[in-house]
Amino acid sequence: MRLFSTPQLNPASETGWRRRWFDIIYRSDTPPSRRFDLLLVYAIIASVLVVMLDSVQHIHAAWASWFYVVEWGFTVLFTAEYVFRLVVVRRPLRYALSIWGIIDLLAILPTYLSLLLPGAQSLLVVRALRVLRVFRILKLTRYIEESGVLLAALWRSRRKILLFLSMVVTIAIVAGSLMYVIEGPGHGFSNIPASMYWAVVTMATVGFGDIVPQTTLGRFVTSVLILIGYSIIAVPTGIYTAELANGMRRAEAGRRRHDDRGCIVCGHEGHDPDARYCNRCGHELPEAMDA
Amino acid sequence: MRLFSTPQLNPASETGWRRRWFDIIYRSDTPPSRRFDLLLVYAIIASVLVVMLDSVQHIHAAWASWFYVVEWGFTVLFTAEYVFRLVVVRRPLRYALSIWGIIDLLAILPTYLSLLLPGAQSLLVVRALRVLRVFRILKLTRYIEESGVLLAALWRSRRKILLFLSMVVTIAIVAGSLMYVIEGPGHGFSNIPASMYWAVVTMATVGFGDIVPQTTLGRFVTSVLILIGYSIIAVPTGIYTAELANGMRRAEAGRRRHDDRGCIVCGHEGHDPDARYCNRCGHELPEAMDA
Amino acid sequence: MRLFSTPQLNPASETGWRRRWFDIIYRSDTPPSRRFDLLLVYAIIASVLVVMLDSVQHIHAAWASWFYVVEWGFTVLFTAEYVFRLVVVRRPLRYALSIWGIIDLLAILPTYLSLLLPGAQSLLVVRALRVLRVFRILKLTRYIEESGVLLAALWRSRRKILLFLSMVVTIAIVAGSLMYVIEGPGHGFSNIPASMYWAVVTMATVGFGDIVPQTTLGRFVTSVLILIGYSIIAVPTGIYTAELANGMRRAEAGRRRHDDRGCIVCGHEGHDPDARYCNRCGHELPEAMDA
Amino acid sequence: MRLFSTPQLNPASETGWRRRWFDIIYRSDTPPSRRFDLLLVYAIIASVLVVMLDSVQHIHAAWASWFYVVEWGFTVLFTAEYVFRLVVVRRPLRYALSIWGIIDLLAILPTYLSLLLPGAQSLLVVRALRVLRVFRILKLTRYIEESGVLLAALWRSRRKILLFLSMVVTIAIVAGSLMYVIEGPGHGFSNIPASMYWAVVTMATVGFGDIVPQTTLGRFVTSVLILIGYSIIAVPTGIYTAELANGMRRAEAGRRRHDDRGCIVCGHEGHDPDARYCNRCGHELPEAMDA
Repeated sequence: MRLFSTPQLNPASETGWRRRWFDIIYRSDTPPSRRFDLLLVYAIIASVLVVMLDSVQHIHAAWASWFYVVEWGFTVLFTAEYVFRLVVVRRPLRYALSIWGIIDLLAILPTYLSLLLPGAQSLLVVRALRVLRVFRILKLTRYIEESGVLLAALWRSRRKILLFLSMVVTIAIVAGSLMYVIEGPGHGFSNIPASMYWAVVTMATVGFGDIVPQTTLGRFVTSVLILIGYSIIAVPTGIYTAELANGMRRAEAGRRRHDDRGCIVCGHEGHDPDARYCNRCGHELPEAMDA
Repeated sequence: MRLFSTPQLNPASETGWRRRWFDIIYRSDTPPSRRFDLLLVYAIIASVLVVMLDSVQHIHAAWASWFYVVEWGFTVLFTAEYVFRLVVVRRPLRYALSIWGIIDLLAILPTYLSLLLPGAQSLLVVRALRVLRVFRILKLTRYIEESGVLLAALWRSRRKILLFLSMVVTIAIVAGSLMYVIEGPGHGFSNIPASMYWAVVTMATVGFGDIVPQTTLGRFVTSVLILIGYSIIAVPTGIYTAELANGMRRAEAGRRRHDDRGCIVCGHEGHDPDARYCNRCGHELPEAMDA
Repeated sequence: MRLFSTPQLNPASETGWRRRWFDIIYRSDTPPSRRFDLLLVYAIIASVLVVMLDSVQHIHAAWASWFYVVEWGFTVLFTAEYVFRLVVVRRPLRYALSIWGIIDLLAILPTYLSLLLPGAQSLLVVRALRVLRVFRILKLTRYIEESGVLLAALWRSRRKILLFLSMVVTIAIVAGSLMYVIEGPGHGFSNIPASMYWAVVTMATVGFGDIVPQTTLGRFVTSVLILIGYSIIAVPTGIYTAELANGMRRAEAGRRRHDDRGCIVCGHEGHDPDARYCNRCGHELPEAMDA
Repeated sequence: MRLFSTPQLNPASETGWRRRWFDIIYRSDTPPSRRFDLLLVYAIIASVLVVMLDSVQHIHAAWASWFYVVEWGFTVLFTAEYVFRLVVVRRPLRYALSIWGIIDLLAILPTYLSLLLPGAQSLLVVRALRVLRVFRILKLTRYIEESGVLLAALWRSRRKILLFLSMVVTIAIVAGSLMYVIEGPGHGFSNIPASMYWAVVTMATVGFGDIVPQTTLGRFVTSVLILIGYSIIAVPTGIYTAELANGMRRAEAGRRRHDDRGCIVCGHEGHDPDARYCNRCGHELPEAMDA
């Protein structure tokens, strides 16, 4: 869970404005820091909306110059935020190299690069880079509390899910190769990579329909592949459900344990939270501390 | 669970016909109230069927005037029901502003609006409003008992599922933008919103096939997106399964507890199955009978 | 589970050949009854294969008369089996009206009906009835042991799954009506039933692509519908998983309980299966009976 | 789990180079054996990539002769590895007939067969055989530790999943036959096998869209089939999740048990957390340390 946690910075020795701004920017448990977070979220959503609207041709035709100004406005704003984050943190390099630090940088870099790489030919490249600005929205997940349990369960099951993905890729290679031989380039299975793309699309039950088997044998192999995929969809679901149930049980057990008391006479533990007497020897229990 | 529960009205002080009709309309545990509910359900289904059949062109051509009469009949019936509901309730405004009150109103409003907005131009709008009448069918869920456990589990996992949906939307934005740059308007990815629509359709394994990647790089990104979506489908399933299993375990525990021994002295119930002394007053418990 | 269980017939008073054949036909725990079951399964699979191959045009052209003979051979065989089942059972009517009795009848009726309804016009109808013969294969599930646990879990969750299906239908009606108004007959959404078909196909992530939204608003509504469907797919999975886990836990508890012993001195129960001394008072335990 | 485990060979009596190489090839817990495994994995991935790239027409046109040499290089390498595996194992025949032995053979056979079956006509066949070389990648799964738990859960639920698949096939036969009668060859449902292919594609929510219902009745049956498939997707997920959760709980219990107190007298471990006396010899246990 190291990747997604807030950076373990220790500004305890710091005082004055840096300490205050660190709390505002990196914490989210005081009114000013909450206000800062909300403002930032609104700015991120607005900037992503501008990029999206700018891509619609008839909107771009009418508003291009206005979008250009807004785009630079957001870039300056996010640059200021990025610099400020580095200033108030004790170890700026460590933050810059963390996941969030890199996303923060990627969110402002493309607009600056568009100045260095002018000309008609580079337009497409710049646009590609600008698109990366939508990574800003990834920041949003940081502000939602619940993500902890969900991500922790994902993190614990990462090895199992990776293994599952490699199984899917293996089956895609075998099935793709088979279908390439059975159906051949004439029916859209033009080479093994294309057949593998088809196998993934089919096994994951997406089924675009741009490439479809047309021979009887091909349809039979497809049916088998689908049934395998259909059975295999159980695997990541099972892994994740089991891990999540574990996590929730532990969290609940932790909460309950907090209230627990042992009997002074017989030492028996595990009483109900509202118990006043030990259920083994009948002696009075100490007062329960309510969480 | 406030949203879906029956309104907590307190007509205890009421007597006479209002009290009796309140019981018939809002309860469902007496023979007359059950008969009322069933009649209403039949009327709702019939009215929805009329709207549906009216939309089929060759049926509309033959039965239009008959449907017009039936439509008004149902509208008058449901209006009477709506007014009656407000009359017998102690706090009519509170009911009118509840989820069910608004649905009841939406189910009758469109037909009346079609009188105020006549003319050829408004036809489409009126039709759009009339379609909302199908919200009537939403009332059906109110009459089925089991919905409690299912909705309670949904309600408890609402934050987690919301978070999951925001993750899906974020991935859709990133993947949609990428594919817009890779494939471009020539292959159907005409702008970022359209690409996002494609990303949602693909990631959720729907895969209409109206927009499909045609470049090798685009197909590779699509395969990755599908595998992500395929792994991520585990998340809501896991959340909901864990919550539902929790809910069912609690319900079963509640039922079992109900059968357990009560303390002879203080009457406290809900002891552990292996408890020998009451955990509230410390008195010895009677022997447990094993089920 | 009444529907799928073997009929509770009591032929205890019967003796002689009827008793013997009842055991062969309805039981599956003796060598002759196992042999009978296997023979029947092979005959069912063969007859279904004949129906399937007969539908392929170029095979039908070459083998039509041969298939006709084989078809009648199977029909006579299954008729004999059906009559025999009725003869050896104590209450023939009760069996004839059970699920399996009706399927047995449907598996032979179409071929006989093709004699009563000759002529070119009735050909299609007869073909439709003949297709019902494939219900024979449904018998197969009867012979597989494991189906008990799976069907029991399905049966326990029947109310929840029914409720879930009615929620899906409700959403299909609302979404289908909305899309009918938004997209209109010009884009394939020709009437509300057709739109509902599209909504079910979309929400269940099938996505044929024969009808697709083409307006921006329609695509947005589609995305929302897909995300709802994507979240809702968790519901039946969750229900069934929770019920199945319950069933498996109970089955395991039942097996373990069988081995359990109580301490003669302190009466403590719940020892490990391989325990030799009570873990509360240290007294020797009675011998464990291994299952 | 016999199928996927490493072969239970007993080379204990062996010494010298055969023993050493057995450890390097079949074990993976010493530095040299790890290095050997990694090298082999890289070679497998490289050889699969060559087969895949060779299938892309414009790459094949430019690099055909180079690919031919590389192909033979890998074949010689893998042949040497295969022979070596047989040499160092005590029972070569047993290994050769195991799953991995057969895959190892299939990975090298096609290239040799392309020498015996020259000529234009046999080209396609040879290509088909060459594709089987991708089975090499299946070896990869052998090297990942976690696969044990996942495969064990799959293995325990094999009967339930087989039963589920036979249910899916049965429904596909019934639904396919019905749709063949309803829609007919004119709408793409040209025979029952083709209709069954369509039913599997639809029920598993793949939905290519190459065959779609066009009549109202056909669309209704399709909707019902989809809802059945949608409910039935819960089954394998539920089975696998329940089995996997069981497996993980047992693994965790095993780990916890491992930390527990041992009896001072008889050394027995694995006592209940609240046990006070050893359940094998009856001697008092040391105090439990709470984790």
